[in-house]
Amino acid sequence: MIETRPLILITNDDSVQAPGLLRLIDCMPQNVDIIAVAPAEPHSGQSSAITVGAPLRIKALPDYGNARMFAVTGTPVDCVKIAMHAIVPRKPDLVLAGINHGSNSGCNVVYSGTMGAVLEGCTEGIASCGFSLLHHSWQADFTMGMPFISEMVKKLIKDGLPEGVCLNVNIPARVEPKGIRVCRAAKGYWTDEYEKYSDPSGNPFYWLTGRFVNSEPNATDTDEYWLSQEYISVVPVACDMTAAQPIDFLAKRFDK
Amino acid sequence: MIETRPLILITNDDSVQAPGLLRLIDCMPQNVDIIAVAPAEPHSGQSSAITVGAPLRIKALPDYGNARMFAVTGTPVDCVKIAMHAIVPRKPDLVLAGINHGSNSGCNVVYSGTMGAVLEGCTEGIASCGFSLLHHSWQADFTMGMPFISEMVKKLIKDGLPEGVCLNVNIPARVEPKGIRVCRAAKGYWTDEYEKYSDPSGNPFYWLTGRFVNSEPNATDTDEYWLSQEYISVVPVACDMTAAQPIDFLAKRFDK
Repeated sequence: MIETRPLILITNDDSVQAPGLLRLIDCMPQNVDIIAVAPAEPHSGQSSAITVGAPLRIKALPDYGNARMFAVTGTPVDCVKIAMHAIVPRKPDLVLAGINHGSNSGCNVVYSGTMGAVLEGCTEGIASCGFSLLHHSWQADFTMGMPFISEMVKKLIKDGLPEGVCLNVNIPARVEPKGIRVCRAAKGYWTDEYEKYSDPSGNPFYWLTGRFVNSEPNATDTDEYWLSQEYISVVPVACDMTAAQPIDFLAKRFDK
Repeated sequence: MIETRPLILITNDDSVQAPGLLRLIDCMPQNVDIIAVAPAEPHSGQSSAITVGAPLRIKALPDYGNARMFAVTGTPVDCVKIAMHAIVPRKPDLVLAGINHGSNSGCNVVYSGTMGAVLEGCTEGIASCGFSLLHHSWQADFTMGMPFISEMVKKLIKDGLPEGVCLNVNIPARVEPKGIRVCRAAKGYWTDEYEKYSDPSGNPFYWLTGRFVNSEPNATDTDEYWLSQEYISVVPVACDMTAAQPIDFLAKRFDK
């Protein structure tokens, strides 16, 4: 009865070689089918980008444990789309992404390739969740967050998620998490974003850097707050980006 | 008193060569300062992607009318970020993107580089709006929508937008628009997404194609509906992707 086992599609944005991808697979329960379809190369900061006007290739890799593994020459969203079209034998029960090497809290959800893949799963009507560790290193230690991920995944398999809502989970680094809090994303923005250089011919070029500014440093109901308290933050993210509340107000201004 | 004139930052995702960019500049009122900073190459489907781990260059181009013109070797969001950091002399009053060659209605807002740039402007606290024509051709005729854009831009300069909300404007092609309707995005998804090929060695590759499926074909309050009625659709888009409504419900399930 292999068709009745839950099928979990796993991806990330750090590439199929990333340790975080394997650690997420390690968190999966017994008695599920796992297919990992991840970018052949790192694609951080790719948001919901799709490959337009260029071909994609799929490469089957050796299994990792009981997970079937595939590399795709595209973005995280490409991975989900082509997995759904050409790889999975049936509609997955979950789309999971991560564990990302680095934070996707606050406004970073907008730029995140991890969360781009999760939004794609949600758009396709599948319960979807992204996991990120607040540590960029390839050698980051994921172990302290993994029992929490395992427990969340079991609940996601059992209960799913409300329609049109996916989850952005961030995990504090280098500590035993004190617990889990479902909360909202802190409002914020990036500043001091570029380092300026001169090339050998004296022509300038710029390199992205910068620091995140939390616009709500005193709020106690945001992901930034709970992460600072060493909790895992879980932010429900809307797949539909419409801001419904101001429609009537703006209709008075613009309708004609 | 040049500092007191409204400053409008314009970008797009079709590149600085795109006719739609010039037509958007043509819609600007007198007595404003215009700086256009657009990708050097086309970047459709780039969403809110940012260039990580590679340099960006800025190239000044000849003015177009009274607009200063710059090309950037990156994505639409890169253009807004680096314009704010290294090009604009003061904080812009508006960030506008387009006119896009092709629709960004329904769920396409998620993949849109045009709307990625607009969300970036919104995140930086600037009233921001994207304009798209439902026609992909480089030779598309933008003229019938332009008086509507001009009028909207005047209102945006005068009144701004509610905090955290930007606009996704789509314009029907090949018709005189009957009017403007502020509305919500139709829920939907893409299907039949890839064409499969064999390369000369017999190895498969895939190319993105597909068709948009409107999940709400009978709804009369969506952008897809109003566009089908030959109206311009204006969808308010939330810069904060948090789905606030299910936080309490999900906290009961996941908090610990």
